[in-house]
Parts: sequence; structure tokens; C-alpha cells
Amino acid sequence: MQGLWLENNQLRHRTDLPLPQPHVDEALVRVRQAGICNTDLELIKGYYPYTGILGHEFVGQVEQGPAHLQGKRVVGEINAACGNCDYCRRHLSTHCEQRSVLGIVNRHGAFAEYLTLPVENLHPVPDHLPDQVVTFTEPLAAALEIQEQIAITPSHQVLVVGDGKLGQLVAQTLALTGCQLFVVGRHAEKLANLSARKIATGFEPDLQAQLRSFDIAVECTGNPQGFDLARKALRPRGTLVLKSTYAEHLTIDAAAIVVDELTVLGSRCGPFAKALDLLDQSAVDVTSLIQTTFPLSQGIQAFEVAQQRGTQKVLLSMND
Amino acid sequence: MQGLWLENNQLRHRTDLPLPQPHVDEALVRVRQAGICNTDLELIKGYYPYTGILGHEFVGQVEQGPAHLQGKRVVGEINAACGNCDYCRRHLSTHCEQRSVLGIVNRHGAFAEYLTLPVENLHPVPDHLPDQVVTFTEPLAAALEIQEQIAITPSHQVLVVGDGKLGQLVAQTLALTGCQLFVVGRHAEKLANLSARKIATGFEPDLQAQLRSFDIAVECTGNPQGFDLARKALRPRGTLVLKSTYAEHLTIDAAAIVVDELTVLGSRCGPFAKALDLLDQSAVDVTSLIQTTFPLSQGIQAFEVAQQRGTQKVLLSMND
Ligand SMILES: [Zn+2]
Ligand SMILES: [Zn+2]
Ligand SMILES: [Zn+2]
Ligand SMILES: [Zn+2]
Repeated sequence: MQGLWLENNQLRHRTDLPLPQPHVDEALVRVRQAGICNTDLELIKGYYPYTGILGHEFVGQVEQGPAHLQGKRVVGEINAACGNCDYCRRHLSTHCEQRSVLGIVNRHGAFAEYLTLPVENLHPVPDHLPDQVVTFTEPLAAALEIQEQIAITPSHQVLVVGDGKLGQLVAQTLALTGCQLFVVGRHAEKLANLSARKIATGFEPDLQAQLRSFDIAVECTGNPQGFDLARKALRPRGTLVLKSTYAEHLTIDAAAIVVDELTVLGSRCGPFAKALDLLDQSAVDVTSLIQTTFPLSQGIQAFEVAQQRGTQKVLLSMND
Repeated sequence: MQGLWLENNQLRHRTDLPLPQPHVDEALVRVRQAGICNTDLELIKGYYPYTGILGHEFVGQVEQGPAHLQGKRVVGEINAACGNCDYCRRHLSTHCEQRSVLGIVNRHGAFAEYLTLPVENLHPVPDHLPDQVVTFTEPLAAALEIQEQIAITPSHQVLVVGDGKLGQLVAQTLALTGCQLFVVGRHAEKLANLSARKIATGFEPDLQAQLRSFDIAVECTGNPQGFDLARKALRPRGTLVLKSTYAEHLTIDAAAIVVDELTVLGSRCGPFAKALDLLDQSAVDVTSLIQTTFPLSQGIQAFEVAQQRGTQKVLLSMND
């Protein structure tokens, strides 16, 4: 089959890949569409040593699986857990110590014609939602993870740093809490997309008068400047959520964290069911985040576009 | 009066300092003893620009103040708050935005014959406790701040990284919670001091089998190696408490914090009343932490000793 293969920091389009064989409790899924994520770009740069098929955001169709999923369109949680370790027993399977992760750790990913995942990872998707919408389930779930970790209420002043793909999803999900939200970014047209949804936005200078006032700041840029800005925006005892993939080490002002008794909170994968609910209700808009769609056969060109600064979501279609 | 004056990263013993004049709501305190803290050493290195009398750990005697404190031996909270800001109104006066801080920010400190502090900052000390014990009230309160921020129970596995003055106080206070405690350090004799109190200790290699298992790790070294070790010791979703003064920026593995969804928590000043209770009950031992005592007139020599690696608490006595 076709697929995008990462090896030694080099991504190649291959046509000689064997069809994956589902293990017991796994399903074989024909991939329909997949999204390129910043984590994929970081993996190519060497964020984590990985060899195999890349990709973890997808929608597909079950070709071999249990009767209730047979032929169904599904999205899939990316952590394949062992089911036996302490974390699995405490329903923290995203932290399973023996987990493989779709297209990231020890498991071939979604930028291919087929993938396999444990049956328990798969969620059928509502018929009325197009492929290009449900492909956002995984990153939307990751944005929702913040609300699993912190109870955010209308009394909270919340800052999102970054107006890229991640910042947009985080901002839209946070807006649903009714919190007092502000998004700081660098791209007028991306901020306009949020303003159109009645979310307050601005550039860094617009934030000066609000420094040291936010209860929560979510860092969605992945760079040290973003971290610093998030930290400076927080009131004493505020919470800085780290939501990005960081390919490199981060240099931080630790003294400021101690003096202001800040909390820095890492945040990763989130609840698929809630993400699908929001998409089902059209409570978030993802189509405005799509830059373009390439067929899988032009996957290398798709990555070239995705790697350009400021590019929104690039999708791969396996249907062409 | 005599005092140790910091100016342009230079500490001098001066004898020409004016007697401080207490404002309304302040008391004039004759200092009896004071302790040199790592924060003092960092201030000399330029951690924060400060000009004035150094010192914030002390015990003294009230010479001018309200009747109930007149002539009493007292210790003093170091943050002098405005009483009017949001933080003061929410009983978070240690975070008052207009605060001065004894010997650290805009307020002359304790390495002198006299100091002034707001009356509300002062706590009378039990008669039976010697000066050299109650001088530890401030750092002991800072160690107790961890328990104000996190409810620590006997089911928690807790690591303390560092066996210096701070690590020793943190370890002793954490041991009182009944948690499963381990202290990793670099000095056999300091670790032996903790072992004698039935606290499990070891060197870094002894920790290898316990990596990724601790619920909470408290960083008491102030250096990047200590931070890294604390991080690696934590289980996914664990909490890393930053308890040190960091003179320099810290370079951290942000990706690991995100992937393991760790919490990094800054921790500063703590509850004086609880610290005095513990000293009153002899629940912690501080005398074993005293390296030596110098008269104030030999304050510069005292700092030379305090600056040597591995030195325990150096005290200044104003009674000689
Ligand atoms: Zn992703
Ligand atoms: Zn597991
Ligand atoms: Zn101190
Ligand atoms: Zn105040």
C-alpha cells in the first residue's frame, strides 16, 4: 500500500508498504482523510526518534472489526494501552507506560491507505459530518484536555498565546466555558477568524495593560517568547498551561515562577467523545482552519506546504 | 547603628547607619539573631537589584510597639503588604502587588542592630525556645508552604532533591505528613542527619530503580541538574515543586512536561504560626543545621563562610 514513511529525519512516499495485520482486539481501518499536525513536523526534525508511517489525526472506515463497527466511519484515539499497568487500571490509559502511539511511538500511523488500532480506541462518527470536519477530532480533543485538568468558569480571565491551528482550537473550546477570554497572536487574518466568533483578540502590545492579571494562560506557540508572554500575563498564583509540542529545550525564568507561586501544567491528549459532541453540535468551527487538501500520493508536497510558517491545517485525502 | 549594607553587588559592614524610624502600625525591633539564607547569597550575585541592609531571617525584641508586644521576643513575616490591593483583600498578602520585603525589596533587613516591620507581621515566640532555634522560623515556614499548596497524605510517594539547609527543613516537615519520603543528596553526613530521623535517603544512583514513580518531587538545589532529576523521578501527572531561589534562568525539557502532563509549582513564603508550633513541640530539629555563629561586627567573614559550598546555616548574633 501507499504511505508516508519517516526514517532518519527523512519523509518518503512509498508504495511498497505491506497491508497492516490487525492483532486480536484490533480493527483494520481504511483511512479516508488525515491531518498534518505540528507534532508530525517536529518528529521529522527529530523531536522523538521514530521510524515508520507518520500521522495520527484521521477519519477512516472499518474494514475488519467487530460487528458493531463493521463498515462504520470512525476516528481513533492515538494511545494504544496495555490494559494492565497501574495507569490503565486507574483509567489513565493515555499515560500507559507500555503504550504505543499512532504514528508517534512504536505504531504505524495514519498517512497511509490502512492502519490498525485497538477496537476500544475507535469512535463512530455522525453521518452528517464530512470527513474534513471529523479529521479534527483528535486535535479538538487535545484542546479540550485543558478543561479536564482545570475547572474553568465565567469568572476566570484566560489568555491564549498563539493564533495558529492549536491556538484557534484552544480558543474556541475555552470560549464555550463563558470565561473572559483574550487571544494574543501575530496574524491579523487569523485573529479576525476568532473576532468573528466574538472572541477578544489582539497583538502583543495590546496585552501590555493586562499583564499580571490573567488567572490562566495557555501557551500554544511552542517557542520561548510565547512561554515568557504567557508567564508575564499571569497574576500571582496563576496557571500556565503548556499545550504545544516542544522540539527543543525551553529556557524559563524559574525565579518568577517561585516568587509568583505559579503553576505550570503540561497538557496532552483529551476526550474524543466530547470533541465529537462539539463537532456534532457545530459548537466549534474547524473548516475555517483548513489550508488545503492533497491526495496521499502528493504527501511530500503536502508537507512542504505544511512546513511553511503560518500555514493552517493541511489535509491528506486517501479517496482520490 | 551597625549593619551589613548591599550596594552594587558589594556587601559592606557599616557603622554609620541611621536608626530606622517605625511608621504608624510598625514596630521598632532590636535584632537579637539572624540567619544567612541562599537568597541573601543570590542577592549579592544580582538575583534581584537591591540596595540596602540585607537579611530576612531573624529573632528580635520589640523596643517600640503596641503594649501587647512591648519588650516581647518576636519573629517577623517578611512581606509588608499594603492592605488594600486585591491580594491583600483575599488574604494573599504575601502576593501584595505593592509589598516591600524585608531585606529583599524596598525594605531594610535584619542584618543590623534594629529593623522595623508592620506590627501585624510580628509573632511572639515561646520563652523556652532559644534564639538560635526561632531564627529558623522563616525558612521553616517556607518549607511548610508546600503543604499549604498540596494536601500530602501517607499514600504519597515524595522525593526531596537536595540535602542542604532547605532540603533538610523540607524533608523534616514532609516527614510529619507520614508520606513515603526519600531524600536524594550529595553529602553523606547531611543525609545521615536525616537517616537519624528515620527518613530514607540516598545518592543519585540509589534513585535509579525509583524513577518515574514519585507523586511529588521537591526541587531544593536551585540548579538545572536538580530540576532534571526531580522531573525524571516523577510519575506521569506528578507534581514538581520549585522551592529554591533561582539566580539564573533554568533550561527545562518542556516536551517531557507536556507528554507526562506534569505540574510544576512555584512555592515561596509560608505560615509562621505553624512553623512556631512545630518548633514549640520540638517536632523538627534545627540546631543540627547550624554551621556556626558570628557577631554582626564580623558579618563579612560570616558571609565568606556561608558562600562556601555545602555550608549549613550561618547565624549572626547581635548580642555580643
Ligand atoms: Zn497532533
Ligand atoms: Zn498500561
Ligand atoms: Zn530566606
Ligand atoms: Zn496589597
